Amino acid sequence: MEMTAHELAQLLSATLEGDPAFAVRGVAAPETAGAHDLIYADSPKHLQRAAASAAGCAILGPEAVLPGKVILRAAQPKLAFARAAAVLVAEQRIATGIHSTAVIAPSARLAPDVSVGPYAVIEEDVEISKGTQVGAFAFLGCRCRIGADCRIFPRVTLYPGARVGDRVTLHSGSVIGSDGFGYVFGEGRHWKFPQVGGVEIADDVEIGANTTIDRGALETTRIGRGVKLDNLVQVAHNVTIGEHSIVAAQTGISGSSRIGSRVMIGGQVGIADRCRVEDDAIVGAQAGVPSGKAVHARQVVWGTPARPLDRFKEQYAWLGRVSELAARLKKLESLVVKD
Amino acid sequence: MEMTAHELAQLLSATLEGDPAFAVRGVAAPETAGAHDLIYADSPKHLQRAAASAAGCAILGPEAVLPGKVILRAAQPKLAFARAAAVLVAEQRIATGIHSTAVIAPSARLAPDVSVGPYAVIEEDVEISKGTQVGAFAFLGCRCRIGADCRIFPRVTLYPGARVGDRVTLHSGSVIGSDGFGYVFGEGRHWKFPQVGGVEIADDVEIGANTTIDRGALETTRIGRGVKLDNLVQVAHNVTIGEHSIVAAQTGISGSSRIGSRVMIGGQVGIADRCRVEDDAIVGAQAGVPSGKAVHARQVVWGTPARPLDRFKEQYAWLGRVSELAARLKKLESLVVKD
Amino acid sequence: MEMTAHELAQLLSATLEGDPAFAVRGVAAPETAGAHDLIYADSPKHLQRAAASAAGCAILGPEAVLPGKVILRAAQPKLAFARAAAVLVAEQRIATGIHSTAVIAPSARLAPDVSVGPYAVIEEDVEISKGTQVGAFAFLGCRCRIGADCRIFPRVTLYPGARVGDRVTLHSGSVIGSDGFGYVFGEGRHWKFPQVGGVEIADDVEIGANTTIDRGALETTRIGRGVKLDNLVQVAHNVTIGEHSIVAAQTGISGSSRIGSRVMIGGQVGIADRCRVEDDAIVGAQAGVPSGKAVHARQVVWGTPARPLDRFKEQYAWLGRVSELAARLKKLESLVVKD
Repeated sequence: MEMTAHELAQLLSATLEGDPAFAVRGVAAPETAGAHDLIYADSPKHLQRAAASAAGCAILGPEAVLPGKVILRAAQPKLAFARAAAVLVAEQRIATGIHSTAVIAPSARLAPDVSVGPYAVIEEDVEISKGTQVGAFAFLGCRCRIGADCRIFPRVTLYPGARVGDRVTLHSGSVIGSDGFGYVFGEGRHWKFPQVGGVEIADDVEIGANTTIDRGALETTRIGRGVKLDNLVQVAHNVTIGEHSIVAAQTGISGSSRIGSRVMIGGQVGIADRCRVEDDAIVGAQAGVPSGKAVHARQVVWGTPARPLDRFKEQYAWLGRVSELAARLKKLESLVVKD
Repeated sequence: MEMTAHELAQLLSATLEGDPAFAVRGVAAPETAGAHDLIYADSPKHLQRAAASAAGCAILGPEAVLPGKVILRAAQPKLAFARAAAVLVAEQRIATGIHSTAVIAPSARLAPDVSVGPYAVIEEDVEISKGTQVGAFAFLGCRCRIGADCRIFPRVTLYPGARVGDRVTLHSGSVIGSDGFGYVFGEGRHWKFPQVGGVEIADDVEIGANTTIDRGALETTRIGRGVKLDNLVQVAHNVTIGEHSIVAAQTGISGSSRIGSRVMIGGQVGIADRCRVEDDAIVGAQAGVPSGKAVHARQVVWGTPARPLDRFKEQYAWLGRVSELAARLKKLESLVVKD
Repeated sequence: MEMTAHELAQLLSATLEGDPAFAVRGVAAPETAGAHDLIYADSPKHLQRAAASAAGCAILGPEAVLPGKVILRAAQPKLAFARAAAVLVAEQRIATGIHSTAVIAPSARLAPDVSVGPYAVIEEDVEISKGTQVGAFAFLGCRCRIGADCRIFPRVTLYPGARVGDRVTLHSGSVIGSDGFGYVFGEGRHWKFPQVGGVEIADDVEIGANTTIDRGALETTRIGRGVKLDNLVQVAHNVTIGEHSIVAAQTGISGSSRIGSRVMIGGQVGIADRCRVEDDAIVGAQAGVPSGKAVHARQVVWGTPARPLDRFKEQYAWLGRVSELAARLKKLESLVVKD
């Protein structure tokens, strides 16, 4: 979509410097931008790249200098750029209309403008609200509820009964509502503990490729509003994740753990069962939070077992000095024995 | 399915206290149970939740007191609850009949009551025994053998030649029999080592969503009877896993490692190639067992490199005391030098 | 395919000892080999297994002795075996012809001998070169370019615009070109940073089951020639991986990190964002390279944070001696105080 610099300035509440009629047609990195692309810069290094760019329009912070381009000044250039991109770049369509090969149960209720790709399967009593796109090979098990304006990429599985809010994006290969991993050992074998609870995904959630989210055992697994999960993340049964929390790739959250709001969890983190990670906490990449432990609000932790970042760094520094301490101890021993 | 309390007591070899004709129709958590749901309690905290529940029937241990409900007493309440649930809760059907869109090779042999969902593909010479359900978009490569009463959820891939026993559950997105990861470097590039072995999954195995199990290189990858693998687990070529072992999410087991029987492996564990984890060992979450190492029978290990749990805890405790030791050493140095 | 020992010797530039007309029909492990299978041995233990084998022909190093078989002598027996297997063992076909159920957009351009399995979906303007096989349920989004002689196993997703070179193998469940994980937090929520860049996979790459490779944000994610990625690997936006590098299962490489050529990365490694791993480096299993750090050319690192292997081992050894140092310190204190 094309916008003038003036229209963009209004959209972003940005201050415009230069031609208000300048046409902006897309977004790009400085190196690959064409004359009508929008770029941004929010660091001296980034500004250097912008100065060498063919882009005609740039979003900058209040102080930055960049001659020869139309400038939009915003307090947070990267945020303004993301918001501009959401308008300038048309979202890829996932499906158009209802493909003739889609298998849709007669009892499924789809809003009139829902689109469904080839070979999607929609079972009995599924409900899908307006504007949602369902990709090829998607499987929506019976009684699923899907909100409005969702983007379900090709090859997503929703087990029966899964509930998904509005404006949710599910990437290819994700599995929502699979059985949790719960067994009771007895008489020489594992008996399956019932995995018959629900799974609810609130509005504005995005879930990465090949990520798995189990249904509750007897309770409900809940992913809060605005949560973003990266690829290959595992969310076990009965987990709850609060609003606007963010979880990087390959992290696993075990059964019945509760993650607060605005929590940031790095990649490959392991959170064992029945943990509590409170609001605004940060868990560094590859950290491990043992069974039943808490990470307190606003705490930053790292390592396995996870501990406050400062303590991790201090312990790690001391670990590097043990050989020196040993040498000093040896010398002291020789002195004392000499006495 | 509905059962009387008397029938449940007989099924579970439990002692009944209260109305033998009481109708039980489902299982639930204490908080969400209705009057005819079954609950259980096996801890004081759990018993408190049970006391506040609307459930009419509860499984308890020998001593627990819970007035106003029909009680079933069992030595292991959770185990009894799991066994009751297996009867009370009907399993979700994955497919009913043979869907008209399934592509089934003429040479495939399916027992009369096998059911196959929409768009499943079953190649030449596949054999499927009675009662097995094959979900939508399942791909069963040529010459696969599937036993009786298996549950193959939508969107599972079996590479050609995979063998699966009876009562096996494969969750959505799992891949069985993919090529192992083996190359020989020479002349400046990687040459693929042949990955032409087999993969065999014994009876009563359950495999989680998006888990991958590679075929053997020249040998056979074997998953033993009753093994349970969680989501996103990786099992490499030539691995063997003994009976009733259990592997939590995102764990990886590298080439030719041998896991014994009744082993418990936590989440995100890494077991390098050619390791041996003996019967009844426990490997804690995120532990790493280096190449060629053994974990002995009944040993409990943690950390990377994995070591006995007690040693891990002791070393970790000492790590936290190095700064104190350094301070004491410094003080001693000042005293000795003063002398 | 059948070959004589003489033909094999020529193919491998190996020295033949024994009957040049001996027919070799397959490859096997020593234990399962039949009379006309080829085996190899490259260690004393391996040679013992070979001696007990029914195989009629074996590849050995220059010195090894193995009576009663046709021998092919090569400097690197395992490499020669892999090369022989590539000729002796016919590759499993993934698709034959264009299946009538494949949904192929009229604007897609497929070379005449491309084969496409049941229910594959090929969108507008896709281009596929000669000899490529596309498996069942593969989804090739619009404008994808696929080179010659590729093997795309069933149930692979290529997001729109992905580019794949010649002789590339993509295993089942892999997702190429999904959106990267990039958000800007502002006004109480996460705004999606545009994920509109490209993804390019060069020639001779193999990508494991359920592995995910994100498209670039504004740039391009690049997987170099001859790279091999194992199962369940995550490659984030803007990452580049140099030629002939190899990445074991469940490793994650975060945004904008640059991996050099011939790098070896173990399983479950985490490489944070904007790291640099230079040519020929080795990163041990489960290691973690923190944000922005470099691993230098030919360095071998392990641990989290990753450090040179020797240093890791030394520190780990000292960690085991802290309790002993503490005891010696205590004794010394008692002596000095006595003074």
